[in-house]
Amino acid sequence: MPRPIVTLITDFGLSDHFVGVMKGVILGIAPNAEIVDITHQITPYEIPEAGFVLAETYRWFPKKTVHVVVVDPGVGTLRRPVLAEAAGQYFIAPDNGVLSLVYAREKHKVRAITAEKLFLKPVSDTFHGRDIFAPCAAHLAKGLSPARLGKLITDYCRLEFYRPVRTGKRIWSGRILKVDRFGNLITNFHISEFPVVRTRPFSLVAGQQEVTRLARTFADVTPGEVFAIVGSSGYLEIVANQGSAARMTGSSAGAPAELTIY
Amino acid sequence: MPRPIVTLITDFGLSDHFVGVMKGVILGIAPNAEIVDITHQITPYEIPEAGFVLAETYRWFPKKTVHVVVVDPGVGTLRRPVLAEAAGQYFIAPDNGVLSLVYAREKHKVRAITAEKLFLKPVSDTFHGRDIFAPCAAHLAKGLSPARLGKLITDYCRLEFYRPVRTGKRIWSGRILKVDRFGNLITNFHISEFPVVRTRPFSLVAGQQEVTRLARTFADVTPGEVFAIVGSSGYLEIVANQGSAARMTGSSAGAPAELTIY
Amino acid sequence: MPRPIVTLITDFGLSDHFVGVMKGVILGIAPNAEIVDITHQITPYEIPEAGFVLAETYRWFPKKTVHVVVVDPGVGTLRRPVLAEAAGQYFIAPDNGVLSLVYAREKHKVRAITAEKLFLKPVSDTFHGRDIFAPCAAHLAKGLSPARLGKLITDYCRLEFYRPVRTGKRIWSGRILKVDRFGNLITNFHISEFPVVRTRPFSLVAGQQEVTRLARTFADVTPGEVFAIVGSSGYLEIVANQGSAARMTGSSAGAPAELTIY
Repeated sequence: MPRPIVTLITDFGLSDHFVGVMKGVILGIAPNAEIVDITHQITPYEIPEAGFVLAETYRWFPKKTVHVVVVDPGVGTLRRPVLAEAAGQYFIAPDNGVLSLVYAREKHKVRAITAEKLFLKPVSDTFHGRDIFAPCAAHLAKGLSPARLGKLITDYCRLEFYRPVRTGKRIWSGRILKVDRFGNLITNFHISEFPVVRTRPFSLVAGQQEVTRLARTFADVTPGEVFAIVGSSGYLEIVANQGSAARMTGSSAGAPAELTIY
Repeated sequence: MPRPIVTLITDFGLSDHFVGVMKGVILGIAPNAEIVDITHQITPYEIPEAGFVLAETYRWFPKKTVHVVVVDPGVGTLRRPVLAEAAGQYFIAPDNGVLSLVYAREKHKVRAITAEKLFLKPVSDTFHGRDIFAPCAAHLAKGLSPARLGKLITDYCRLEFYRPVRTGKRIWSGRILKVDRFGNLITNFHISEFPVVRTRPFSLVAGQQEVTRLARTFADVTPGEVFAIVGSSGYLEIVANQGSAARMTGSSAGAPAELTIY
Repeated sequence: MPRPIVTLITDFGLSDHFVGVMKGVILGIAPNAEIVDITHQITPYEIPEAGFVLAETYRWFPKKTVHVVVVDPGVGTLRRPVLAEAAGQYFIAPDNGVLSLVYAREKHKVRAITAEKLFLKPVSDTFHGRDIFAPCAAHLAKGLSPARLGKLITDYCRLEFYRPVRTGKRIWSGRILKVDRFGNLITNFHISEFPVVRTRPFSLVAGQQEVTRLARTFADVTPGEVFAIVGSSGYLEIVANQGSAARMTGSSAGAPAELTIY
C-alpha cells in the first residue's frame, strides 16, 4: 500500500527546532507517513507567497496527499483552522486566505476544524503547527474521515492577493508574490488577464525600477538590463539579465508593483 | 511495523555532501529507517546551541527514536562517542556535553561506544558522523541491543551551559543559547530560576544593548523597541519589535549575556 | 523489500517550489521511493561543483540507488538527457559533463534517454527536472530496465574540470570546485597528481591571495593565516585559520586558481 504523503509549507526556516517537532508529532500518530518539505523559507507571515507556492505545487502530487500550510500571523487569536478538500487532495491551514488560489481554481469543500480531541493539549498560543495542524494532518493521512475534523462552512476567508486592483483608467496596483532564488520578482499580473502587454506599450514599476519591455527569453536582452518575461506560472516576472532584480529594485515578497498600459 | 526513526542535528550546513553521505550510510545498513532532519544549521562547533535544539525536540518523537547529534569540535581527538538511553529513546553523540540537558531532565544510562566492528574502516580523523555515528545509529534503529555498542559509564561529560553562573551579589553571567529565524536571542536565563524578573527591576545586557523591560507580548511595546519576553521554552529571550535583536546587539549563539537584579 | 533510493542534487535552492514538485512527480510514479536530498544549493549552473559533490557522495549509497543531478544551463536546448550505469548504481542527468568524475573513476555504460512516453507532456522548455528527470528516475526506481530508457551511446559529454591545465613550464591553471560551509576553497589540484607540493616550494593563488604553505592541521598555523591543506577528498584546499578563505580571497565556485612549483 502506498504511504500517505504529507507536505509542509511554513515560514519556520531550517535552523530552529519547529519543523522537526512537527515531524515528530506526525510520525508519532502516522508512522507510515511520507513527509515532504516543500519549503520552510516563506517570508515570515507572508500569506500570498505561501499561497502562490502551494498553487504551483499541489497538482503534481498524487490524490489523497495532505498539504499543510503554516504561515500564521494570527496564531493565538480566534482565526480558525480549516480543512479544504479539492482536486482529490486535502489542505490544512489557518483560515487566513492562504488557500485562496486553490479555492479559485478547484471545486472545493471547506470545513472548520473543531475536533479538539485530536489536538495536543494544552494547545499553546504560539505553535499551532505542533498542537493542531500536525496532529490533524497525521490523522487524515492515517485514514480518518474528513467529516470527523469538523463541519462544512461557507464563510471561510478568501483573499484576492493573486489579482491586481484597478486604481485608474489604465493603472493597476499589484504586488510581488515571490522572489525566486535568482532574484526574479514574480508579480501577480497574470498574462491571461493582461495579454495586452504583448501588443501595447506598458510600464511596470517595482521599487525604483521601471520596466517597459517584455522579452521572450534572456537571450533577447543585454547584460544588466531589467525587463519583464512571462514566467512558467503565467505571471509577469521582473528579471535582470545576469543580475538580481530583487537587489536592483529593493523589492521583496509583498512589495507593491504597478502596471500602466498606454 | 512502524519504521524506525533516526533524527539528525549537525553543524554541517546544507550545501556540502556531508549530510547526504551520512544518510547513504544509514540507509545502506537500515533500509527501512525514516531519517528526519532536525537542523544542520547549528553554528559551527556550538555545543550549547545543539544541546538546546535537541532538548526542545526529542520529547515530541515516539519511543525508540534514535537521535544523532554531530557537533564535534573534538573530532579526531580522544573524546569518546556515547550512547544515552533516556525517555524511552536513544541519543548518539560525541561525549562533549551536548546531551547535558537530556541528562538534567531525564533518568538516563550512558554507554561509551566501543564496538569498533560496527564502524566504517578506516575511521577517518575528520568525519566520525559518517564512520561512527551513522552506522551505530543505523544498527540501533535496526534493532541491535544498546549493550552491544559498549559498556555503561558514569564519567561522561556534563556541561551546565543551560545555567548561568553567579558572578556578584546580584549579577549572573549567562549566554545566548540560540538565535532564532527572526533574530530573537534565546538566553540561558530560565524563568523558573529567575521568576524575580517578573516583579523586580532588572537589567539584561547582550552586546551593546541593555534591556530593562519584560513584556508579555509584542503588542505591549513600540516598534523598534528591544525588550525581554519569556519564550516558549521558558528561557528569557531578547527580542525587538519589528526588527532583529541579533543585528541590533551584534550577538550570536555563544555570546555572553549578563543579568542584574536590582 | 528495501525501498528504492532516489537522491537529488540541484541548483534549485530551498525557497521555491521546484524541489517539492519533483518529489511529487517521483512519489506519484514510485510511491515507495525514498528520496534523499544531497544538496539543492549548488551555485546556479555550476556544473563542476555538482560533479564534485556527486563524486564525494555516491559511493556511500547502496547498490541500485538512482542519483539525479539537475544543474542544467542548457535546459531547453538540444542537449540530451542521459542515464549512466556505474558502480552498481544509476545516474540521471543532462549530458553536460556533470557525470565526468563518475566516468573517470568507474566502469560505466551511458544511454541517451529517448523514451518520450515516460516524460510528462507537454515537456516544458524550462523545467526538465519535473518533466524528464523525475519521471525517468521514478520508473527506474520502480524497476524499469535501463535499456527501456534509451540506447547506449559513446559520444556523451566528458569534461575535465577536475584536472588543471598546464599553462607554463611550472604553472598549472585550475579552478575552485567548491566553497564549503566554513569558506574553505576546494581546488581541483589533487594531491595524487601534485605530491610535489609536499616537498617543494610552491605558490597557489586564488583571487588576491597567494598561499605558499601546506599545513597538516589547523593547529600548525597562526590565527588569521591563509594556507593550504590536503582535504578529505584529496584535493588541495585553501583555508584560513579562524576565518573564511572565500571572503578573504573573494573567490567562489568556478573561480580560477593557479599553481606554480618552484
